[in-house]
Amino acid sequence: MSYIDELGTAAKKAELEMTSVGTKQKNDALKAIADKLIESKDTIIKENKRDIENAKVNGMSEAMIDRLTLTEARIEGISEGVRQVMELKDPIGEIIGGEELPNGLIVEKTRVPLGVIGIIFESRPNVTVDAAALCLKSGNVCILRGGSDAIYSNKCLVGIMRTALSEAGMPEDAVQLVADTSRAVAGDLMKADKYIDVLIPRGGGGLIRSVRQNSTIPVIQTGEGNCHVYVDKFADIDMAVNITDNAKTQRPSVCNAIETVLVHKDVAEQFYTALNAKWNGKVKIYGDETCAKFMQTERPATEEDYATEFNDYVLAVKTVGSIDEAIAHINKYGTKHSECIVTINLNNAQKFRKCVDAAAVYVNASTRFTDGFEFGLGAEIGISTQKLHARGPMGLKELTTYKYLISGCGQVR
Amino acid sequence: MSYIDELGTAAKKAELEMTSVGTKQKNDALKAIADKLIESKDTIIKENKRDIENAKVNGMSEAMIDRLTLTEARIEGISEGVRQVMELKDPIGEIIGGEELPNGLIVEKTRVPLGVIGIIFESRPNVTVDAAALCLKSGNVCILRGGSDAIYSNKCLVGIMRTALSEAGMPEDAVQLVADTSRAVAGDLMKADKYIDVLIPRGGGGLIRSVRQNSTIPVIQTGEGNCHVYVDKFADIDMAVNITDNAKTQRPSVCNAIETVLVHKDVAEQFYTALNAKWNGKVKIYGDETCAKFMQTERPATEEDYATEFNDYVLAVKTVGSIDEAIAHINKYGTKHSECIVTINLNNAQKFRKCVDAAAVYVNASTRFTDGFEFGLGAEIGISTQKLHARGPMGLKELTTYKYLISGCGQVR
Repeated sequence: MSYIDELGTAAKKAELEMTSVGTKQKNDALKAIADKLIESKDTIIKENKRDIENAKVNGMSEAMIDRLTLTEARIEGISEGVRQVMELKDPIGEIIGGEELPNGLIVEKTRVPLGVIGIIFESRPNVTVDAAALCLKSGNVCILRGGSDAIYSNKCLVGIMRTALSEAGMPEDAVQLVADTSRAVAGDLMKADKYIDVLIPRGGGGLIRSVRQNSTIPVIQTGEGNCHVYVDKFADIDMAVNITDNAKTQRPSVCNAIETVLVHKDVAEQFYTALNAKWNGKVKIYGDETCAKFMQTERPATEEDYATEFNDYVLAVKTVGSIDEAIAHINKYGTKHSECIVTINLNNAQKFRKCVDAAAVYVNASTRFTDGFEFGLGAEIGISTQKLHARGPMGLKELTTYKYLISGCGQVR
Repeated sequence: MSYIDELGTAAKKAELEMTSVGTKQKNDALKAIADKLIESKDTIIKENKRDIENAKVNGMSEAMIDRLTLTEARIEGISEGVRQVMELKDPIGEIIGGEELPNGLIVEKTRVPLGVIGIIFESRPNVTVDAAALCLKSGNVCILRGGSDAIYSNKCLVGIMRTALSEAGMPEDAVQLVADTSRAVAGDLMKADKYIDVLIPRGGGGLIRSVRQNSTIPVIQTGEGNCHVYVDKFADIDMAVNITDNAKTQRPSVCNAIETVLVHKDVAEQFYTALNAKWNGKVKIYGDETCAKFMQTERPATEEDYATEFNDYVLAVKTVGSIDEAIAHINKYGTKHSECIVTINLNNAQKFRKCVDAAAVYVNASTRFTDGFEFGLGAEIGISTQKLHARGPMGLKELTTYKYLISGCGQVR
């Protein structure tokens, strides 16, 4: 029996046990997790330090080390996150449809957990707890595979969660860590369709593509965000500058920040001049010829720039001749995440909404709003950029499926 | 540019054009398809004969040739099916949720097509038209890859549909056929995630597994049905015999027919004796020792039998000691399709509903009801046996996704 077979078998057993676990028990477990995280702060920080030391030896960048680091305040934040998930409404058991058929059969469509969820992520130990809490609340069992650089932190965090589960009378195998972070085991995990119902990669484009290429398990693709603002011929220029500024600079590292602005030629001079005055070099611009006339630009934008998620104070700029050109550009280079038009023209707004293929299409608002909390989902396991199953921010409901329950009294066809 | 790149590029272009196609135009096109199928009967039958002749030369079985054959009556049936799809409510544009956020942003969750759907199926030319009609009505573009044995029939049918589309002012590339049925092109198709949003294999287990293994496109797995009836200790024996008979023999070749009966030991003698009297050898039984005492059996059932979808007048039988043993057997061997318990005990019914992991779980009714028409969906592209996206019978709504449309007046974060 391979390592993944062992984890998978334990997960299937836990999945069956989870069918008799109710909301109260799940909430008790989440509360115990939140409490234990606080109680175990010192141990967590100690284990996290081992990861950080190794990371320094391995020459990890400062930014990456920052993402790996757990401080007292961060642990409190993680604990608070678990408490928030606990307070959300339990999605399981909701009857989402149903009827009595002419033959007297009663059909109920009932919300149930997806089952066993695999989550593959990079070296961010906060994701370990976050993802597990969402899976538990939605009645799912999870198998977590974090980056090898966070292995000591993850082992410690998962250990704490399993103890809490066990104390709350729930199967501790409802949360399992892939402790062997070798490539071979990751490969086995991606082929474990016998045990795992859904695989969610959380991380950069490289990770997502690798999972998509290698997995035989249904995958939900999340978080790649090459987003755009299109400044229409009929844009309010002040609004366009404001939205562009917010969507680019309020938090450039996140997936709902924009990477390219498309500007209608008729308002190019006005818009570029105003944006240049606002930023004054704060954002590095890869522009075209028209843009370069009115803005400080670094160099001309390339095809590659248009396909790049900079996640930084960098913006590609393109002047377009029509809304159709803008839509074509977005549908070619975008990652189906969040797209915005600034316009006061109703026809153009409607055309953009219809023709742009993305999870969230904005008229006159910043793309930064695409987020489970902003959209009122209460939490978020990621933002789906595929069209199957769920699109955009994924909360608890998006971690469920349904089951038809049919009650009869002997009906046959 | 490869062949699949060509089809994919044309499909993306058609997808964009479909955003401005309304219900009336779609219905006009469907009506034109239905009419043209009737008008072109002779041509279709002539082209179909070429396939049948080749199939005979290639030694295809009688049953397979029957599935491949188009008669006048069958063409009328296919045409009538298209007309029925035309009459269904258009799912596109439905606003399935939404609210005004505290900051004044208006969020609408709107139903939109999935986009480009790839369908891989075996040599059943009726599927060609069926699948295309459902995709069109739900606003999707489709790329059809049928079995090579039906290539002349499929070329003819797709040609007719494309003419009808063009006459109705719709993009004819909304329906495309993969005319090169080589393995290499099938491989390219399964990796065409740049163009195709969802891939649906329709056919046997081998086809589905191959697509699942090789595709980088999100797949919806349909139609594998290893279904069970569990005759509980508290079953009404007459009802149990009736349901077993119906679920096995009313149409053994379909996916919602059963393959194994599990019988509680306390009612084994009664049930086996009654079923034996009813069938009197009509169904070949692979039973265990207990079963063999009271029924004519062929031979003992093997592990392999329990994992087999016979699709024939063959039934595996197992006597179990408890409902838990029955549930464990079903969750081990079942394909998450349709499962039934016969019982008058409420606790057991509830336990079975909760613990059995399947799209449709029946209490006291035949599994044969799992079907888009029976469930009131009006049509069906297949029965999903996976948990992502859609479960059980998939109608028009299951061929859609949603898009968040956000309207603001300059909001930023």
